Amino acid sequence: MLDLIAPLVVPNTTKIVLLSLDGLGGLPRPETGRSELETARLPNLAALAAEAACGRLRHVAPGITPGSGPGHLGLFGYDPLRHQVGRGVLEALGIEFDLRAGDVAARGNFCTVDAAGRITDRRAGRIPTETCVRLTERLRTIRLPGVELFVEPVKEHRFVLVLRQTRRGGALAGRLSETDPQAVGRPPLPVRALAPGARATAERVNRFVAEARRRLRDATPANMVLLRGFDQLPKLPRFPEVFGLGSAAIAAYPMYRGLAKLVGMEVLKTGGTFADEVATLREHWDGYDFFFVHYKDTDKAGEDGDFDAKVDALERLDRFVPAIRDLRPDVLVVTGDHATPSILAAHGWQPVPILLWSRYCGADGVTAFTERTCAAGSLGVLPAHHLMPLVMANALRLTKFGA
Amino acid sequence: MLDLIAPLVVPNTTKIVLLSLDGLGGLPRPETGRSELETARLPNLAALAAEAACGRLRHVAPGITPGSGPGHLGLFGYDPLRHQVGRGVLEALGIEFDLRAGDVAARGNFCTVDAAGRITDRRAGRIPTETCVRLTERLRTIRLPGVELFVEPVKEHRFVLVLRQTRRGGALAGRLSETDPQAVGRPPLPVRALAPGARATAERVNRFVAEARRRLRDATPANMVLLRGFDQLPKLPRFPEVFGLGSAAIAAYPMYRGLAKLVGMEVLKTGGTFADEVATLREHWDGYDFFFVHYKDTDKAGEDGDFDAKVDALERLDRFVPAIRDLRPDVLVVTGDHATPSILAAHGWQPVPILLWSRYCGADGVTAFTERTCAAGSLGVLPAHHLMPLVMANALRLTKFGA
Repeated sequence: MLDLIAPLVVPNTTKIVLLSLDGLGGLPRPETGRSELETARLPNLAALAAEAACGRLRHVAPGITPGSGPGHLGLFGYDPLRHQVGRGVLEALGIEFDLRAGDVAARGNFCTVDAAGRITDRRAGRIPTETCVRLTERLRTIRLPGVELFVEPVKEHRFVLVLRQTRRGGALAGRLSETDPQAVGRPPLPVRALAPGARATAERVNRFVAEARRRLRDATPANMVLLRGFDQLPKLPRFPEVFGLGSAAIAAYPMYRGLAKLVGMEVLKTGGTFADEVATLREHWDGYDFFFVHYKDTDKAGEDGDFDAKVDALERLDRFVPAIRDLRPDVLVVTGDHATPSILAAHGWQPVPILLWSRYCGADGVTAFTERTCAAGSLGVLPAHHLMPLVMANALRLTKFGA
Repeated sequence: MLDLIAPLVVPNTTKIVLLSLDGLGGLPRPETGRSELETARLPNLAALAAEAACGRLRHVAPGITPGSGPGHLGLFGYDPLRHQVGRGVLEALGIEFDLRAGDVAARGNFCTVDAAGRITDRRAGRIPTETCVRLTERLRTIRLPGVELFVEPVKEHRFVLVLRQTRRGGALAGRLSETDPQAVGRPPLPVRALAPGARATAERVNRFVAEARRRLRDATPANMVLLRGFDQLPKLPRFPEVFGLGSAAIAAYPMYRGLAKLVGMEVLKTGGTFADEVATLREHWDGYDFFFVHYKDTDKAGEDGDFDAKVDALERLDRFVPAIRDLRPDVLVVTGDHATPSILAAHGWQPVPILLWSRYCGADGVTAFTERTCAAGSLGVLPAHHLMPLVMANALRLTKFGA
């Protein structure tokens, strides 16, 4: 799709806002038969839906629940099945670690092993984050030839390990097996190279693990580490170049800033609330063609299984819609990166409602923004990575294909 | 898709009419909220829609605006992403030049260059067509070894260059770079071979350009040429053989006759009006199984941005529907090659309404032929090149797949 689009891109001065309501889609609460979107009072989104083309986005494939990485890569126009990003890289992006090309990142767990070295708790009883911080300090002074090491705390038992090639070290490779056997009663596995060029990197990681075991020996309960999701930054076509769009990301949460940076968007400094994000949007309106604006509260409430909090998050968002429309974007999209139905208290596989407004969108009969109404919208069920071509067309930024 | 179909084709005597209303789809006019199809009085199409299966055709991909070439290739059953036709070839088809296998065709512009040879106007001020005719006469007497040259005027500054291999010349190749730098202030680029076998052809084109420069030196303002879209006739599976259909094309405009000829249809002689086309259809009814009938007025009005003229073109077309139904086709399809919304005054990316009538189509609840009603039709959004298999099935000309 990107190969098809790139040669068709033509310049224009139109402005695009892609508003991603994290975990947007929901499910009816059994007591009422109405979903979060159907329960919330959303007059501004309803008015926008009435003038927009509506439908549903499918991010990966039927029945597949997207993580935040594939969810957003799809919104940005990348087929998430073709462009996969390892968990180590996503975890590093999530703490806004300055991951560089060639770095190898892994997701780490502190765990508990018995005297024989067998795992007794894969998460070390979910130690407090402060303990995690203290333990990573023990590990980050480990020295290995040819690589620079970073060990960064994340939350509870989770940390990030990053290996960076030094000037004299050879290139690193991310194709490595995991040390987590995914079961208790067994010892951690040694790291194996999964590609011929990864042998030296595997050896270094194994030396890191051996040294970590030594340094954690007396730490209770977190006396060992498990490493998973080794990967390097993927080589993604750069979003601003592919689409010819000066592109800015406005997101209060580091993971989404990291995903935007991954595809080459400029990440704007903003505050911690959505009001701050909208103020940032207004302030930088003249500086960019494309704005990715991220709203987290919908997902947080859904993940907590708090139906009412998700309704409330939607209603709060709705009140910001006029301020965004006042900027007079040429294309305004409201959708999400995946569903997070409150009754699941987790990401869901359900297609996500979408509305796309432009002068040329060809409005359908949909006059409310819900899962059910959008199912009858003119966009139908759209693979998420087909959204950007449609956005570009509506922004009059694509020329025709063939004479 | 063609590979799947071909072995399933069985003979029958059923008759098929594919009526292509060029640029059929539209968009609501902001003042009324109603599209051209929603504004026009179309009683005959509505009655047909009520008995037909309705839906929308997508010709290339979401957001992609099809040119007439890919638009019609899709209708004829060819995946337009797989079977691409160069602009030079389409331009030659558009003037009904008798392009033969192995010929290399390019789209030419007369342009203006300054004393230093730098382009000052890529279209030479859009010289009148008569000037274009006169200048092509200067160029068509250029002689080059091993090739026969054709230089044919098109319109204003545009012409077609065709190179044909002579009996003693080597084979020609179309994989050549363009001479148009797509910017003023720079000299035209030399043609480069984009494939190893294209070197000799590139050299000949460069000699043609050098000689053209000499012969146009004193012509103001059109004192140089630019060449683009080099290509040869694509090797397409032949429509009549793939589908086992005696196939005729009825079109008043040369481009569509050319596209039909490209896939091996027989092009019937007809007059310049749609009444002439319907008379031709009636006259040849017994001679063929499949008729491609092309109606241009809808596109012309849309391209002119003339909403009322497009409404009028639709209403005029509607009045011919009974005459076509009177012939008692077994399958009657009404659709288009792309949208041309009047408010865009250009081809659009929007899926195109389609109705398919046969005794076995399984009519849905759609009782009007518009963008919005067809969005709720039973055909859903259909890739254009999936239409022909559906047509063949409805004509009872396909056997089952697997025992």
